[in-house]
Amino acid sequence: MVRRALEEDLGYGDITTNSVIGDADTQARGFFILREKAVIAGQEVADLVYASLSEEVRITWLEGEGRWLEAGTRIGEIRGPARPVLSGERVALNFLQRMSGIATLTARLVDEVAGLEVKITDTRKTTPGLRLLEKYAVRVGGGYNHRFSLSDAVLIKDNHIRLAGSIGTAVARVRQKLGHTVKIEVEAENRSEVEEALAVGADIIMLDNMEPSEIKEMVQLIRGRAIVEASGGISQATIRQVAEAGVDFISVGALTHSARAVDISLELEL
Amino acid sequence: MVRRALEEDLGYGDITTNSVIGDADTQARGFFILREKAVIAGQEVADLVYASLSEEVRITWLEGEGRWLEAGTRIGEIRGPARPVLSGERVALNFLQRMSGIATLTARLVDEVAGLEVKITDTRKTTPGLRLLEKYAVRVGGGYNHRFSLSDAVLIKDNHIRLAGSIGTAVARVRQKLGHTVKIEVEAENRSEVEEALAVGADIIMLDNMEPSEIKEMVQLIRGRAIVEASGGISQATIRQVAEAGVDFISVGALTHSARAVDISLELEL
Amino acid sequence: MVRRALEEDLGYGDITTNSVIGDADTQARGFFILREKAVIAGQEVADLVYASLSEEVRITWLEGEGRWLEAGTRIGEIRGPARPVLSGERVALNFLQRMSGIATLTARLVDEVAGLEVKITDTRKTTPGLRLLEKYAVRVGGGYNHRFSLSDAVLIKDNHIRLAGSIGTAVARVRQKLGHTVKIEVEAENRSEVEEALAVGADIIMLDNMEPSEIKEMVQLIRGRAIVEASGGISQATIRQVAEAGVDFISVGALTHSARAVDISLELEL
Amino acid sequence: MVRRALEEDLGYGDITTNSVIGDADTQARGFFILREKAVIAGQEVADLVYASLSEEVRITWLEGEGRWLEAGTRIGEIRGPARPVLSGERVALNFLQRMSGIATLTARLVDEVAGLEVKITDTRKTTPGLRLLEKYAVRVGGGYNHRFSLSDAVLIKDNHIRLAGSIGTAVARVRQKLGHTVKIEVEAENRSEVEEALAVGADIIMLDNMEPSEIKEMVQLIRGRAIVEASGGISQATIRQVAEAGVDFISVGALTHSARAVDISLELEL
Amino acid sequence: MVRRALEEDLGYGDITTNSVIGDADTQARGFFILREKAVIAGQEVADLVYASLSEEVRITWLEGEGRWLEAGTRIGEIRGPARPVLSGERVALNFLQRMSGIATLTARLVDEVAGLEVKITDTRKTTPGLRLLEKYAVRVGGGYNHRFSLSDAVLIKDNHIRLAGSIGTAVARVRQKLGHTVKIEVEAENRSEVEEALAVGADIIMLDNMEPSEIKEMVQLIRGRAIVEASGGISQATIRQVAEAGVDFISVGALTHSARAVDISLELEL
Amino acid sequence: MVRRALEEDLGYGDITTNSVIGDADTQARGFFILREKAVIAGQEVADLVYASLSEEVRITWLEGEGRWLEAGTRIGEIRGPARPVLSGERVALNFLQRMSGIATLTARLVDEVAGLEVKITDTRKTTPGLRLLEKYAVRVGGGYNHRFSLSDAVLIKDNHIRLAGSIGTAVARVRQKLGHTVKIEVEAENRSEVEEALAVGADIIMLDNMEPSEIKEMVQLIRGRAIVEASGGISQATIRQVAEAGVDFISVGALTHSARAVDISLELEL
Repeated sequence: MVRRALEEDLGYGDITTNSVIGDADTQARGFFILREKAVIAGQEVADLVYASLSEEVRITWLEGEGRWLEAGTRIGEIRGPARPVLSGERVALNFLQRMSGIATLTARLVDEVAGLEVKITDTRKTTPGLRLLEKYAVRVGGGYNHRFSLSDAVLIKDNHIRLAGSIGTAVARVRQKLGHTVKIEVEAENRSEVEEALAVGADIIMLDNMEPSEIKEMVQLIRGRAIVEASGGISQATIRQVAEAGVDFISVGALTHSARAVDISLELEL
Repeated sequence: MVRRALEEDLGYGDITTNSVIGDADTQARGFFILREKAVIAGQEVADLVYASLSEEVRITWLEGEGRWLEAGTRIGEIRGPARPVLSGERVALNFLQRMSGIATLTARLVDEVAGLEVKITDTRKTTPGLRLLEKYAVRVGGGYNHRFSLSDAVLIKDNHIRLAGSIGTAVARVRQKLGHTVKIEVEAENRSEVEEALAVGADIIMLDNMEPSEIKEMVQLIRGRAIVEASGGISQATIRQVAEAGVDFISVGALTHSARAVDISLELEL
Repeated sequence: MVRRALEEDLGYGDITTNSVIGDADTQARGFFILREKAVIAGQEVADLVYASLSEEVRITWLEGEGRWLEAGTRIGEIRGPARPVLSGERVALNFLQRMSGIATLTARLVDEVAGLEVKITDTRKTTPGLRLLEKYAVRVGGGYNHRFSLSDAVLIKDNHIRLAGSIGTAVARVRQKLGHTVKIEVEAENRSEVEEALAVGADIIMLDNMEPSEIKEMVQLIRGRAIVEASGGISQATIRQVAEAGVDFISVGALTHSARAVDISLELEL
Repeated sequence: MVRRALEEDLGYGDITTNSVIGDADTQARGFFILREKAVIAGQEVADLVYASLSEEVRITWLEGEGRWLEAGTRIGEIRGPARPVLSGERVALNFLQRMSGIATLTARLVDEVAGLEVKITDTRKTTPGLRLLEKYAVRVGGGYNHRFSLSDAVLIKDNHIRLAGSIGTAVARVRQKLGHTVKIEVEAENRSEVEEALAVGADIIMLDNMEPSEIKEMVQLIRGRAIVEASGGISQATIRQVAEAGVDFISVGALTHSARAVDISLELEL
Repeated sequence: MVRRALEEDLGYGDITTNSVIGDADTQARGFFILREKAVIAGQEVADLVYASLSEEVRITWLEGEGRWLEAGTRIGEIRGPARPVLSGERVALNFLQRMSGIATLTARLVDEVAGLEVKITDTRKTTPGLRLLEKYAVRVGGGYNHRFSLSDAVLIKDNHIRLAGSIGTAVARVRQKLGHTVKIEVEAENRSEVEEALAVGADIIMLDNMEPSEIKEMVQLIRGRAIVEASGGISQATIRQVAEAGVDFISVGALTHSARAVDISLELEL
Repeated sequence: MVRRALEEDLGYGDITTNSVIGDADTQARGFFILREKAVIAGQEVADLVYASLSEEVRITWLEGEGRWLEAGTRIGEIRGPARPVLSGERVALNFLQRMSGIATLTARLVDEVAGLEVKITDTRKTTPGLRLLEKYAVRVGGGYNHRFSLSDAVLIKDNHIRLAGSIGTAVARVRQKLGHTVKIEVEAENRSEVEEALAVGADIIMLDNMEPSEIKEMVQLIRGRAIVEASGGISQATIRQVAEAGVDFISVGALTHSARAVDISLELEL
């Protein structure tokens, strides 16, 4: 990903920097500065960006990933030849700002459910091509990861049920085809679907787009016979209520598809 | 990008769909439905996702890109074998939702400056690996594209100026090195920098993080001797004021780094 | 895989065929002939080999995958321009013979445990680079697939336990780190390890290198509280005994690391 | 090949090891142990596997490639961070076991013809994608390499002859097309084909699927006017007889398509 | 090669054509016109360039490869959507002009030795990355191909001999290592090296940088016991003399490293 | 490019060198020798070739790029293991000879216009796949670079004008579509086209295939209102005249499409 991002941004070369910095030996030094309160993530990726450009650039991280940091914090110091320091700036920041945005949003939701047993997870609604990094950022923010890909685990959704005819048929077909290492999750939109999923022995039941009160009722119905996940339409405003309903997991697509980039800049010093 | 996104999401295969849809000939039909008012973008990418999975899946787009559409609109109809229809759903939507998010935010800002000469442009603050698609979405939303890469055009920023010693030195070095097909843009943070940029004949002057009133003053100072671009800290609330100050271009990083995904779903019918 | 195999075999071109067949329009027709009793697999891969070389070559498969076929059977007919028919022969056969070898060995073991509930599975002891095809061949032969990769499911093996200190510690660490979609399997070499795995709630217990009698004892100890898999040192001679001990799954590395290629040839006719 | 094999096996990461080994600095040490008498091959590939995962893992090979080693031999010692040591185990062993299997089978056949001038060679019946490594293993076992690809040398086989009309026509066409650096080999199934091949000046004549007595007769007929290669249906039981018939080379497809993996394991110590 | 060349030339798109041709359905028609007397080569490559850009562009070749054509000849007609017709022009011409340059220079030398048995061959002094196409162009011009790569055939050059100590040692080492499908060529700079190469049974002797008279002498010395190739410092002025000396092959590096591009243009008509 | 070139030349290995140099530890030392007066370019590429083959080979460059050097000059010394030194020779020289050819031709033309303000530039008529290196060589020879790709800058050529209807329409369409960072160049074949280009405010006017006298007239007509570039049919014989006509740039396709390789050899010493 880093290599592709650099190719995309450099084209056939950074013509500004290569012209303005006439001497390849000119050195630079500066700081990555956090411009707003946030949880940062992506330091290793920023390291890789610079390692791909030059063996001589070194970033010393002054603050760790995963903790709330205040606006104005110097999070890292960079030293090395000025050309790669400048040419890699945008790509390093693009990764860092996006990943920190995800970590920050995750941390905000995780804080919201503090003290409860529930775990916050991501979804597959990630940026095409960046899933691994975005799921990493969710973990940095205190969240957990749902499926990485369609080959990881079974999740029988409404469209699958519609085409199979019933939850029972869908689950039976899966059982007949797959090995023993795979878990089966079923999406349920109402009580009768929850009951059907329980009856066929789903490992996990996902309660899709239900109100907190309905979720609570379903948790009581399931009584530990399956792992319970809530998903769909859950915002920072409602997440605590959903969590208190007693679900095991809450999955939130917005963590990865709608997190705002965190404002971080690179300031060189003379 | 499409191939990579599919590899990322499919892993070694969609084990749910391949098990649940026992018969490879089962057909499916459904609609892509817009869940909120938005400008959509990315139809060709969704087409490519499905073309990569099966020659038999066809999407008929019922609404075009680039126009405001209401919540609930059926934007496309899909028909084909159920397996690829289901296996490609998430990747197709991930592209479509993100690109539509960018087009929608761009359209909102473009509407804001309606009637003025100014053009709204993106920046290089794009998602690593997706720049071409994101810049396409900006155009769909009515915006224009700034540099695609560091090799496209010269933009001398604060860090360059600091290292070169002055705007004059920086521009002189660029002139001596580069061919005649490249434009030179200089970032200026105050009046004296604008004057220096004018003096050395910059093609474009970017006013960085200035107040609307200061921008207005600079436009009057420049008097057409260079193209004027405003950038930095411009929100939907302030963009009209900036535009009215008389700049030629306003570049907005948030178009690509902080657009929220548009809610779109795929509903199969029997 | 097909593309790589063709590049590897063609180098800069099939100099024999291109010289001997002077006229690119010369047509050929022939049969793929099975030289020994076997279960064949890999027809789609052979199709892909030829599709990569020419749009005009067509194979009509006369016998299906997954059934026992006698020596001498014509399994497919090929027609098309002579050059690609000849140039693709070795690569198509290399895939077909190896995949049929795996399907045949699997079918032999599956037949051996006929009438019992047990399922035969593969392992990760596959040919580097060909795992997906080899696991497909196992399914064709009537077997099931174990993990596709290290990111699919958790399998805590002896080396992990040694480094963690105990099964309990190892399982606890996994629980704390991973999401809810992943199953946990523990390898146990003796009764006390089985008991420890049960105590910490392993989803699957793999009995490693145990005698049939010991396996039987362990199955009784576990009593359905976990899925039971037997592995290690199981040959065609002993597999029925292991199966009768009551395990749910038997995993066999030899399916993929030591299957003999099935003898198949391509005979052109005039 | 190593990189692809690692991607295939690691998926998005070794979730077991990364969870169980909580501390990335935990060190491990262990031995690669040969479980049966064999000739090993593939040490450099195993080195590459670990080098791709970590710069800190070191294997010290205690025994060399190409010699017979007894069951129980410690062939190498590994030291380094526990995570990459465990995550690379299966891929390293998959390469090592397969390559050692080929080297061992080759060595067995080479021993069989000890004292004679004949050379044992491989064929193009190799595992798709692994040809270079498999041909290396053949050399480690004391064998020689036949063509690496279809562009290396000319081998006119039965299907070519059938389509060209005669050996003479086929050879004439090759002569007219190709440069002087390429050798021409002709496959002959009987005396008249051998005579025809001799008449047109083939550099090498391959005696296909002949009995030892017939091979002897053909060698006498050829009397050094071409290099003689025997191929097809030659087993460990018959290879000495074929060799004593006086051929220069014996090519054996089974070396690469049907060698059994050698049993090698990695045992960590505390 | 074609894909890479297009990526290199298109960057993120042909901004001129995409802007100037506002309507994607605009059609264009034109001719490839030869501007000087030449032998053309590369039609299939030009076809591939356009096929990579659009399925709708069609080139109808009006003149074949491999024959002398006069200046002003319309060699092909192109029809299709104007955008891809224009965007592919430069890449198609870059391939066509270079390949035609090589074919033309080859044809000129081949004409020079008309009536003699000798064959003109290329060398490995080709443009990095384009060897296959350049060697194809040599064949179009009536030449033959020497080695395609270092793994094709053995050529023992002066530096090898120096390091091995003698031609005899070098050849002996090769014999001991390699299979029987490979030819051995030895570079000889004087009579004693030719004698040594003959003595050790080289398949081909390359006379390096000798005068025609010396070459003649060497041919008489060799008397058919090896194939004779002349190489080094042979120009259009001297090639006939060298050929008349009786060598079998003359290899000429300039064919590929110093051929001048043939002038070809694309003229659209309305 | 280097990696591809090595794969192309090495095939599955340098069978000559690996056989002749029996001991992998054998060391070699030698010199790159310039065989004719030239300006050399490509040292870093030669370094990369060897770095890709071995970490132990070192080239010490004795002469710099960009200056005229006499025939016979030792331009670099190479030391390291004999095998990679020999195996990389041809690829390193292929790059070095071609790039030096381009630098030399460029330097010759630059010398021709010494004392004048004009700059010599290349075109997009480069070798497919090697554009970046060839444009680098042009700079080494004292030239400047025109567009790197079609996405760099707008150049409206005759075929565009024909399809758009007029220069005015073409330029207007470009203005409406593109951002402000892109320059617009128009190709003009006569006075009326020059006038039209001036009227619509082209940034650069390219005078295509005009006589020096006509060029002079056009320069006077344009009077600094646009940058002036001359192109087409300019040879070493006419370039000074064109330059004296007062153009800003002269672009020469032959720099990259028809430069003759410079003769450089590698001589090992004992």
